[in-house]
Amino acid sequence: MKSVVNLVLLVGLSAVTLAADKDLKVGWADKVVIASEDGTIRLEIGGRIHNDWAFMGSDQAIQDPFGNLEDGVEFRRARIHIGGELYRHTEFRIQYDFSSGEAEARDVYLGFKDIPVLGGVRIGQFKEPFGLEELTSSNDIPFMERSLMNALAPSRQTGIMLHNSGAGDALNWAGGVFRESDDTGTGTGDNNYSLTGRISGSPWYADEGRRLLHLGFSASYRSVDDQVVRFSTRPEAHLAPTFLDTGLIGADSYQLQGVEGAVQLGSFSLQSELSRASVDRLAGSGADFQGFYLQGSFVLTGEHRSYKRSSGAFGTVKPRNNFMNGSGGLGAWETSIRFSRLDLNDQEIVGGIQEDITLGLNWYLHPNLRIMWNYVHADLESVGDADIFQMRFQVNF
Amino acid sequence: MKSVVNLVLLVGLSAVTLAADKDLKVGWADKVVIASEDGTIRLEIGGRIHNDWAFMGSDQAIQDPFGNLEDGVEFRRARIHIGGELYRHTEFRIQYDFSSGEAEARDVYLGFKDIPVLGGVRIGQFKEPFGLEELTSSNDIPFMERSLMNALAPSRQTGIMLHNSGAGDALNWAGGVFRESDDTGTGTGDNNYSLTGRISGSPWYADEGRRLLHLGFSASYRSVDDQVVRFSTRPEAHLAPTFLDTGLIGADSYQLQGVEGAVQLGSFSLQSELSRASVDRLAGSGADFQGFYLQGSFVLTGEHRSYKRSSGAFGTVKPRNNFMNGSGGLGAWETSIRFSRLDLNDQEIVGGIQEDITLGLNWYLHPNLRIMWNYVHADLESVGDADIFQMRFQVNF
Amino acid sequence: MKSVVNLVLLVGLSAVTLAADKDLKVGWADKVVIASEDGTIRLEIGGRIHNDWAFMGSDQAIQDPFGNLEDGVEFRRARIHIGGELYRHTEFRIQYDFSSGEAEARDVYLGFKDIPVLGGVRIGQFKEPFGLEELTSSNDIPFMERSLMNALAPSRQTGIMLHNSGAGDALNWAGGVFRESDDTGTGTGDNNYSLTGRISGSPWYADEGRRLLHLGFSASYRSVDDQVVRFSTRPEAHLAPTFLDTGLIGADSYQLQGVEGAVQLGSFSLQSELSRASVDRLAGSGADFQGFYLQGSFVLTGEHRSYKRSSGAFGTVKPRNNFMNGSGGLGAWETSIRFSRLDLNDQEIVGGIQEDITLGLNWYLHPNLRIMWNYVHADLESVGDADIFQMRFQVNF
Repeated sequence: MKSVVNLVLLVGLSAVTLAADKDLKVGWADKVVIASEDGTIRLEIGGRIHNDWAFMGSDQAIQDPFGNLEDGVEFRRARIHIGGELYRHTEFRIQYDFSSGEAEARDVYLGFKDIPVLGGVRIGQFKEPFGLEELTSSNDIPFMERSLMNALAPSRQTGIMLHNSGAGDALNWAGGVFRESDDTGTGTGDNNYSLTGRISGSPWYADEGRRLLHLGFSASYRSVDDQVVRFSTRPEAHLAPTFLDTGLIGADSYQLQGVEGAVQLGSFSLQSELSRASVDRLAGSGADFQGFYLQGSFVLTGEHRSYKRSSGAFGTVKPRNNFMNGSGGLGAWETSIRFSRLDLNDQEIVGGIQEDITLGLNWYLHPNLRIMWNYVHADLESVGDADIFQMRFQVNF
Repeated sequence: MKSVVNLVLLVGLSAVTLAADKDLKVGWADKVVIASEDGTIRLEIGGRIHNDWAFMGSDQAIQDPFGNLEDGVEFRRARIHIGGELYRHTEFRIQYDFSSGEAEARDVYLGFKDIPVLGGVRIGQFKEPFGLEELTSSNDIPFMERSLMNALAPSRQTGIMLHNSGAGDALNWAGGVFRESDDTGTGTGDNNYSLTGRISGSPWYADEGRRLLHLGFSASYRSVDDQVVRFSTRPEAHLAPTFLDTGLIGADSYQLQGVEGAVQLGSFSLQSELSRASVDRLAGSGADFQGFYLQGSFVLTGEHRSYKRSSGAFGTVKPRNNFMNGSGGLGAWETSIRFSRLDLNDQEIVGGIQEDITLGLNWYLHPNLRIMWNYVHADLESVGDADIFQMRFQVNF
Repeated sequence: MKSVVNLVLLVGLSAVTLAADKDLKVGWADKVVIASEDGTIRLEIGGRIHNDWAFMGSDQAIQDPFGNLEDGVEFRRARIHIGGELYRHTEFRIQYDFSSGEAEARDVYLGFKDIPVLGGVRIGQFKEPFGLEELTSSNDIPFMERSLMNALAPSRQTGIMLHNSGAGDALNWAGGVFRESDDTGTGTGDNNYSLTGRISGSPWYADEGRRLLHLGFSASYRSVDDQVVRFSTRPEAHLAPTFLDTGLIGADSYQLQGVEGAVQLGSFSLQSELSRASVDRLAGSGADFQGFYLQGSFVLTGEHRSYKRSSGAFGTVKPRNNFMNGSGGLGAWETSIRFSRLDLNDQEIVGGIQEDITLGLNWYLHPNLRIMWNYVHADLESVGDADIFQMRFQVNF
């Protein structure tokens, strides 16, 4: 086949010589995969749309400080990515989110894979290795939003990370040095750096992941260049205003710790995390904030949440019977419940304390389409309550 | 072939298992189409560039309020999209326009097709079903800009729409509920909703669309959450300033109605629309604004405007003889003329009245390239006149 | 094969008829190339990431006016493009850079190729034909940043250009009329135009470009619509502040001239340019600014800088032995050194005078991955010195 492609390109030839070195084959594996037969080139092109609709109500005690909670629609995420592996040992990914009107860098990195001593190395902007919920893709978490506790997770920053992904089996580790960077991946400051690491694993793993026990621990030391740190979060609804907020805290550095665990028994899974931030303040004694959540998920139609043993995170629920492809089923249906709590009060800092209960119903029509319904009851301590009903139409590939 | 692809992907295998479920074939159908042999997956990747050059002049009466009308260049549109159909019955499209420097959502939706009772359902941001000119793609309209009347069309908002597209033949219908949303697809407000519907059809349709009669009617009821509504437009030239503008009008709601008709007799087509907005004002009696246009197009080289019977809108002119592909012709040449009028004066509101005459010449070099020349004579009642010459270099695929 | 593709598309058929006219083949030629067998359609999809890390220091004399030079990271470039040739004689390219958070137009144009009398014509936004360093891709220049002198190059603007690219061999020419346009490609003003041309060639060219002599001359006349012109630059480090800056200079027009030369003797190459700007000021006599650089590059592993004879610019260094693909080598290693000088002082204008020495080390792991280390010593005359160490992780395809 090679000769044919070369011929084609020579006919259409411009000044730039374009002889294709390799034929590429295009395939569908729940996304578009383009690969050479010798396995040296593998590319993916994909994207996601999360279209959210929210309906909210609250008592007067919430409206006084936060205003009327208005109904709304938005694209919570609208991303396009291109990435893959080049010559087996290097990888890259360019992923931008356009939902805000800005071009916001998400996973934008390059890396090395299967390097003899180091394992894997990744450079650029990507998620710091911290927390099971954070490291599970927004396409795959069983609720529309991550828990209140996620306010304490560092998420994506620009850095260099070593990891054993790909080689990992029962035990995963990853650790790196990062600079806190904005949505364009820019971070400045002589004193702007963080050290973050995570160890996780599945000591019990049976039946190809239908039954497993997951445990993990994450820690981060974070130097603060501009000498202020702030924690805040919305009530697990992105169209709602920010309820919890410490405001700016003068600090030299802070530390994060997180413990995570999950059990899966077929269609039933239980997952919990506990995180804590300890701030070394410039004035006064240290301030500590903590959050946790406990969530359960049950897939009514018998499937289970997939689990990526190599990275220590959950994937999606793959529907078995899928009326979209004519197999006579109605996709997969999952119910979920979560209790989460975040305490941003300490010393004289009053960021607030909130407890949320979320009920979820998820319909996986086929591997690329999910419809979600979430009801969130948010209880903001010493203030009041809010009730939010929201739904998401999700395409990802 | 399947086994080969699987093999390839297993060789280049990372932690994420990547066995291609299906081979995809890549083809060219005036754009890139990627599809599986069983027809369950079909994807498109495409884009458009509209590069505009304008030269303007006006009398002093126009310059006094609007300043000197300066010549200029711009990308009127610069879009990339990816979309398609997954498992036959679902569709999606992610289309962003980058021409303004912002990432502006255009068609960003998912949907269901050929559903037994409902027909088609579409969710996300897309054009409300209102008006023939609005629903004809900017790649295909015979002038560089839509008419003055288009100031009264709702265009793209976020919503949920039912439609019979795909099943439609002589008669099309579509109707949905929408929230007015900005260029990111975000729309908030408890009272922000619209109901919009359109019925259109081609009672006479012969010779594969070379000869036809098109008729349609659209209506919209629009609740206004922030209690202000505004209509404004430029003089059918995007690099010119806004001439007509009602300013903010206090209102609870407004209604839109539109009537459309077109006749095509081979290379000759005539098209007209009449739209009206009725605003329920907070104070004072209701205010009504109306616009209309009448346009004729003649394809000198014998081709005709294509017509999409399933959606009740026109497509492009497909050049028969195309010197680009060596068939000895010089592409298709089309001349066009339009008269349009918009009246934004009513009660004490003085948005202005304008009448435009536009002459157009369009060269379709091949199905993906069009060069346009437009001369617009704009007559702003009680103010003055402006003359605009503009050209567009258009690539779309 | 054609019938199979048609069949597929008819099965998945929507209202829009989608019969693929041609099969397309996908290949890898250091990037993804999609082409039809008859050579009439050729498309490319690609992108680049430049992830920069900088560490800076300076004496107090620099910190007084410019503040502390802070370390930092950023995506210097993050681009995606799609482009190609349609029906042999037309070309297009849509390239956007997202690194700033804005969608910034880079190469966004369409054009005609191999036209009988005119040669090639290009319309839209692209680089004005001025200067060897400017016209060499940022993927390929042997330093992380272009020289100080580049402050005098016009770079990308919106225009129409004639050129002999594709036909050129020993001699290249290009010339066009441009409007100065912003990062969205928008440029307004009745008096906003430039005329720019370049003649370059390789009178001596041997051994398939391993040995060559390159010479070139560029000139530009630039009318200034808003009657101000400004030249400024950072010290060859994008994360550093702007050191040289003329401020706004009242002017009707200015001219640019540039002379360029390069010699390549296998792995060793020497390159130099001299540019000059002459400003016709509104008040006072004309002001002249000039810059130049001299750079040498030596590829330790024996490869050479590729040279594009058709466009008169250098390409990348292609690594021969590439440990990534198992051929037993360690890629290509290149060392480089550059001296550059820019003088923005004239008459009463004090934009500053700077001399930089840059040392570079570049590792080309494979054709799509480059890691760069640069040390810049910047000497700002009458102010002070700064030392910058920076590295880049680059993926491009």
